Parts: sequence; C-alpha cells; structure tokens
Amino acid sequence: MKNYNKINVEQQNRVELHEQLGLTGAEISINILPQGTNVPFVHSHKKNEEIYAIIEGEGSVVIDDEKICLKAGDWLRISPAAKRQFFAKVNTPLKYICIQVKEKSLEEYTMTDAIVY
Amino acid sequence: MKNYNKINVEQQNRVELHEQLGLTGAEISINILPQGTNVPFVHSHKKNEEIYAIIEGEGSVVIDDEKICLKAGDWLRISPAAKRQFFAKVNTPLKYICIQVKEKSLEEYTMTDAIVY
Repeated sequence: MKNYNKINVEQQNRVELHEQLGLTGAEISINILPQGTNVPFVHSHKKNEEIYAIIEGEGSVVIDDEKICLKAGDWLRISPAAKRQFFAKVNTPLKYICIQVKEKSLEEYTMTDAIVY
Repeated sequence: MKNYNKINVEQQNRVELHEQLGLTGAEISINILPQGTNVPFVHSHKKNEEIYAIIEGEGSVVIDDEKICLKAGDWLRISPAAKRQFFAKVNTPLKYICIQVKEKSLEEYTMTDAIVY
C-alpha cells in the first residue's frame, strides 16, 4: 500500500472513509442529520469505543436513557456497551464526525510513538 | 469509568483530547498552524497510523519528499513509517484534526461490531 492516501469529502448525508482511505486502525464516518430527524435506531458496540465530534448545528444524544445536549465544538467518548441515539434539533441540522476504534487498542502515542528527525 | 465523557473544545493552537476524554483506542489533537508557519520538525511513527482532516484554511504536507496541497474537506491516512511535515499557506491558517490509532488494530466495525436495538 502507498505510504498515504488522500481524498476530498463533499457534503453528503453520510460518508464512510474506511475503504476510501484504506484505514486499518479506525472507521470514520461524516454524518449530517437533517433538522428534526434522528438516527432511526438505538445501538451499542461489541468492542469499539466511539468518539463523536460535533462540527455544525445543534442536537442531542441519548446515552443509556440520559439526554445530553450537543453543539458545535463538543467532543464525546462513548464506551462500547452504552446504548446511544443521536437527534438533530427541530430547526437545525446536526453535522458530526464519528470515529470507531477498538477499545484499549492504543499503546503509545505522540512523543512515545513518534520518531522526530 | 463513566459510560461517556463530553467536553467542549475552544479554539486554541493545539488541544489534545486523550486525557480529557479518557480515550483508550486513539489520541486526537485539534491544531491550528498560523499563516506562514509549519510544524517545526519532520516526524514518523513506530506503530501508529495517523488520519488527518483539514477543517479550515489551506496548506500542504510533505510526505517522504512529496508535496501534497491541502484544503478544507481533505482527509489523509498516513502510514506509520512515512516522514511528514505540515505547512500553512503564507496568507491562511491551517486548521486540522489529527487522529492517531494503532495500525491494524481495528477488527470489526459498523454493522459487524454494532448491536442494534
């Protein structure tokens, strides 16, 4: 495999990057929930930690029956077993990035994993 | 640990999320390179794949002596061993997210890792 891959992501309701970028340590999706809509199911994960970044708009997420309000600049880590469902506000779309990684898979990072030249 | 953590990230030159969010499968940083500046060193990684998302602005990255132009909406996967250095354009800051994950650590994802209720 080439030492890098690059793509440009156009605005769409959902874009999944794993295959397009040849990712091996994460899946990343870029999502837009139109105003007044929600992800149509509740879900949890078997092994994967999810990290959400709110990019634009406002909404909420229900995690194990607790409602958490969301706005641009918010970042969330959600444990695999937690049940989650995302909602856009009635008058505002919610744009967010979702990053899936295997829980406890990171060993070293930044200065302890880097080689600086 | 609680089943989720949430923070709101204010605009700063560099914010690292690992400790603030209690991440276990990734390190994520949010970075702003002021116009005309660059990361002051070249680096590679021992085990970690890096994924970069360009959020705002324009710039470039040199990967193993190849220069790649960057603008908002670009996403990059970079292999651990590749030598990389990021540059903001002379008249435009470069805002980007960097996600570090252990290469080949993801097993299942999305529908094969999810439990839907």
